[in-house]
Amino acid sequence: MAADGGGEPDHLAGERATAQFDVDGMKVAWAGSRHAVEVADRMARLVASDPVFRKDTRTMLSRKELFKDTLKKAAHAWKRIVELRLTEEEANLLRLYVDQPGYVDLHWGMFVPAIKGQGTEEQQKKWLPMAYKFQIIGCYAQTELGHGSNVQGLETTATFDPSTDEFVMHSPTLTSSKWWPGGLGKASTHAVVYARLITEGKDYGIHGFIVQLRSLDDHSPLPGVTLGDIGGKFGSGAYNSMDNGVLRFDHVRIPRDQMLMRLSQVTREGKYVHSDVPKQLLYGTMVYVRQTIVADASKALSRAVCIAVRYSAIRKQFGSQDGGPETQVLNYKTQQSRLFPLLASAYAYRFVGQWLKWLYTDVNQKLEAKDYSTLPEAHACTAGLKSVTTSATADAIEECRKLCGGHGYLNSSGLPELFAVYVPACTYEGDNVVLLLQVARFLMKTVSQVAAGKQPVGTIAYMGNIQHLMQCKSAVNTAEDWLNPAAIKEVFEARALRMAVNCAQNISKAPSQEEGWCCTSSSVISNMKAWVLL
Amino acid sequence: MAADGGGEPDHLAGERATAQFDVDGMKVAWAGSRHAVEVADRMARLVASDPVFRKDTRTMLSRKELFKDTLKKAAHAWKRIVELRLTEEEANLLRLYVDQPGYVDLHWGMFVPAIKGQGTEEQQKKWLPMAYKFQIIGCYAQTELGHGSNVQGLETTATFDPSTDEFVMHSPTLTSSKWWPGGLGKASTHAVVYARLITEGKDYGIHGFIVQLRSLDDHSPLPGVTLGDIGGKFGSGAYNSMDNGVLRFDHVRIPRDQMLMRLSQVTREGKYVHSDVPKQLLYGTMVYVRQTIVADASKALSRAVCIAVRYSAIRKQFGSQDGGPETQVLNYKTQQSRLFPLLASAYAYRFVGQWLKWLYTDVNQKLEAKDYSTLPEAHACTAGLKSVTTSATADAIEECRKLCGGHGYLNSSGLPELFAVYVPACTYEGDNVVLLLQVARFLMKTVSQVAAGKQPVGTIAYMGNIQHLMQCKSAVNTAEDWLNPAAIKEVFEARALRMAVNCAQNISKAPSQEEGWCCTSSSVISNMKAWVLL
Ligand SMILES: Cc1cc2nc3c(=O)[nH]c(=O)nc-3n(C[C@H](O)[C@H](O)[C@H](O)COP(=O)(O)OP(=O)(O)OC[C@H]3O[C@@H](n4cnc5c(N)ncnc54)[C@H](O)[C@@H]3O)c2cc1C
Ligand SMILES: Cc1cc2nc3c(=O)[nH]c(=O)nc-3n(C[C@H](O)[C@H](O)[C@H](O)COP(=O)(O)OP(=O)(O)OC[C@H]3O[C@@H](n4cnc5c(N)ncnc54)[C@H](O)[C@@H]3O)c2cc1C
Repeated sequence: MAADGGGEPDHLAGERATAQFDVDGMKVAWAGSRHAVEVADRMARLVASDPVFRKDTRTMLSRKELFKDTLKKAAHAWKRIVELRLTEEEANLLRLYVDQPGYVDLHWGMFVPAIKGQGTEEQQKKWLPMAYKFQIIGCYAQTELGHGSNVQGLETTATFDPSTDEFVMHSPTLTSSKWWPGGLGKASTHAVVYARLITEGKDYGIHGFIVQLRSLDDHSPLPGVTLGDIGGKFGSGAYNSMDNGVLRFDHVRIPRDQMLMRLSQVTREGKYVHSDVPKQLLYGTMVYVRQTIVADASKALSRAVCIAVRYSAIRKQFGSQDGGPETQVLNYKTQQSRLFPLLASAYAYRFVGQWLKWLYTDVNQKLEAKDYSTLPEAHACTAGLKSVTTSATADAIEECRKLCGGHGYLNSSGLPELFAVYVPACTYEGDNVVLLLQVARFLMKTVSQVAAGKQPVGTIAYMGNIQHLMQCKSAVNTAEDWLNPAAIKEVFEARALRMAVNCAQNISKAPSQEEGWCCTSSSVISNMKAWVLL
Repeated sequence: MAADGGGEPDHLAGERATAQFDVDGMKVAWAGSRHAVEVADRMARLVASDPVFRKDTRTMLSRKELFKDTLKKAAHAWKRIVELRLTEEEANLLRLYVDQPGYVDLHWGMFVPAIKGQGTEEQQKKWLPMAYKFQIIGCYAQTELGHGSNVQGLETTATFDPSTDEFVMHSPTLTSSKWWPGGLGKASTHAVVYARLITEGKDYGIHGFIVQLRSLDDHSPLPGVTLGDIGGKFGSGAYNSMDNGVLRFDHVRIPRDQMLMRLSQVTREGKYVHSDVPKQLLYGTMVYVRQTIVADASKALSRAVCIAVRYSAIRKQFGSQDGGPETQVLNYKTQQSRLFPLLASAYAYRFVGQWLKWLYTDVNQKLEAKDYSTLPEAHACTAGLKSVTTSATADAIEECRKLCGGHGYLNSSGLPELFAVYVPACTYEGDNVVLLLQVARFLMKTVSQVAAGKQPVGTIAYMGNIQHLMQCKSAVNTAEDWLNPAAIKEVFEARALRMAVNCAQNISKAPSQEEGWCCTSSSVISNMKAWVLL
């Protein structure tokens, strides 16, 4: 603001001039490589210079205009990707910078991966080419009105009818209505639908099915399919560009071969059989999805922090006792103590995200070699990181908004929309509290295994050092000692382990297992946080 | 949700049946009296049954439709108040339940009180009757683009011209544009404008002026006045019903007697003189405004908690091992440990709000008797409570939203709008961090006064007990001891005092006063929180 006031020094240039690190080197470290910096830069400029991709009016559009704008941008992005023959890396970055939630996210991010991960080779050959060419648009229909976290409780049924070699998809109750899938409300022609597989009168639990929802001729819902948009969501702009939808089936029939059959099949006769593909293979996908979520946390947080840091450098308030210039709010210790840890977190999540990419490769290689030993740890680790980074990021964006005073409350600051569009990450892909409880269960199991002499692996290998960690005294005596990473690491390890052991003891003391769980679950969560911070 | 599923037990009725306290008695305690329960109930029903006041489509309206809807509701509320000859108490409650921010809030809440508090009797006689009859609509124009927290830094000038007996209102810089005042963008005809008073070539600092902005004939801006709306704000619906505005003056002339002259005047000749009214009288108003903010925190929080508690009672997820019913999420300890403290806070803020009402009366009585001894403490106390309750409430509403899982992200849950409309309370009427820093300064002063043997008053009287509190050991030995309020109080007092003394020592050790302040201000803030919790 003040910078426009005439005669004002350029505070941003001033701050930048005092940077004491290698800015260019940091860019490379952030992006991962010099090549990655270059591609990201090029794609960002492509989006910024294209009027179709403009974002500044987004919060002023009505819901309908916003949805049309999303369709237009998605089509235009696709056109540019084809015209410029962009690589997959480039195309992903371009979509990232277009930065408007839309059905394409679910098509590429959930529908295609579900078929890749859970479909047979034959199924992949049939469906993926159509999906790649956008001849069909897919979404991911798992959550129902009545069940989100508890996937095993889903009520939609897929009952095999051997007389026609078909599954009958049906929504038996109101609560069985599919509710939330992005892209379902208006755009999708197809969905991967999760439903209870019933054959020969027996319920085999939740399985995935490819179901066509709308006509490929006129996009109208097929007979027996009821569809709609579930309405407005948090914020203006934000996630309202997405057509999250509701879906009900009234005895809709699909061919048997549209069950995703990589792990298990129903035969022509209606027999349920497992294939020899181990179900652990699916976990690879989960590690992949969560890795992208942690990387996204860093992206969202870095945007918010960037706005708040720049604002704090330019905004001046108070501190002029003798008529001289006021103090940049960036120089107030309270502003710094709120802002700088968030800045540090943005970097930390970035590097954790890069490490998770490595973990994903590692897990996949081990899976190929049928080594499942590190899976539970990788699973718990990614669940914990997903939970902690998304919760902290949502809170941090809101703190950045407050750090900009009144101006942060205006849509023109960008921060309200950034918060509203980011915050559901705490809920989707696993509610953050439910995830932490899973991690807690894993940790308690590990404690008892360690007690029984088993050596833990991966990020919890330190627990093997239990004798030392339960008794050691911190090596920190002076303030300087905190600059020694090994000392910090030991402190965190000791804290996490002692908390875990303490929880485990409380649980074993409780009258029943279940009750013990309930009573300590809240403290286990703090434990989790300590552990994930390692 | 599940309740509609057919055959489901009515979980809300079940929970209500197990209440172990006197529900009716609690209603009375909450409202303050049996009479207050009755009035609140009657007004709530009046609003709920009137189709003009419906709220369910609010988040779906465009900004323009929403603003028109606000005008319609405000006019209709006014009509009902007149028709039904409502008392002031009833009228305030009716407006509360209409629950849509609008220019009337500033008219009644800021414009009228400013004239009452800062205008002479003559000025009150002239302006208040017009305001009471809505012949004029007023707003409160203090904040500028460049200055919010630092009111002394405002740049708008009001220069006295003795040749015409007028003040010339002017916006000399871009940053001097008034920015934020509610009701300014579209509705107001008048404003109380805060500007630097300049007479005889000397700058006498910030004073209030009544300025007409728009024609009473056709509502067009008067010559020299530039007006506009500052654009969309956080959320859909929410605070977007308010026409927060921007205002610039190009040498606009107003009669001298439109300066608010209760505390100081400019004479016909241009002399600046103080009246014999002590400026401390203004603090009474501030205590009043902050008391309403704390009461409002409790109202907003209780709504959010009510939605989250009911949802948690009805929502079931997991926990059915044997095909029986799933567990109500209300019964998970993690859900309880997140939700119940918020429920307790809603009650706590309510009762603190009631106590603040008493404090306001007490302060006013003392002011009448020219006893200013308790003012600094009352001022610090209300500033701290404003800061702590609004920050905690904003966070709590967001936590309630998350506690409702995916459903909390839909506008239809009511929670996104509740958060977006509430959260600026952390910024307006004093940025929460800036307020805490003021409280901290007060506390440090008190510590040094106590050290010099002066007896502190009001909520910090306990500091007089410094010898005991610095040395005492907590009387708590068993878990039951925590049930003794005196023990808890002593612990809080000891903690707060020790932190305060510690801060004061750190400050005195620092190389310069100013630097000491900066370095310890963050920890002083934790101190504040401890203190306010008392
Ligand atoms: C923006 C958005 C997009 C989405 N997109 C999709 C999509 O494309 N496809 C799709 O299928 N779904 C989608 N979803 C749905 C999402 O996956 C679910 O909302 C999520 O799984 C959470 O489930 P829920 O809403 O049922 O919450 P619930 O499980 O009902 O949670 C409610 C509360 O109960 C608590 N709780 C639940 N179980 C336990 C337990 N065992 N112990 C302790 N506490 C518990 C939770 O912590 C929470 O506080 C989307 C959701 C959102 C918000
Ligand atoms: C919805 C809404 C309605 C409003 N309505 C009105 C109205 O009707 N009339 C009106 O006049 N105004 C109104 N305002 C303006 C409001 O009063 C200001 O936004 C508020 O005073 C904060 O000032 P600011 O925005 O300039 O924040 P800033 O002062 O710029 O704060 C920015 C950051 O700097 C920090 N900071 C500032 N000073 C210090 C310091 N000394 N030490 C440490 N940190 C510091 C703050 O903590 C904050 O993090 C409204 C604002 C909002 C959001």
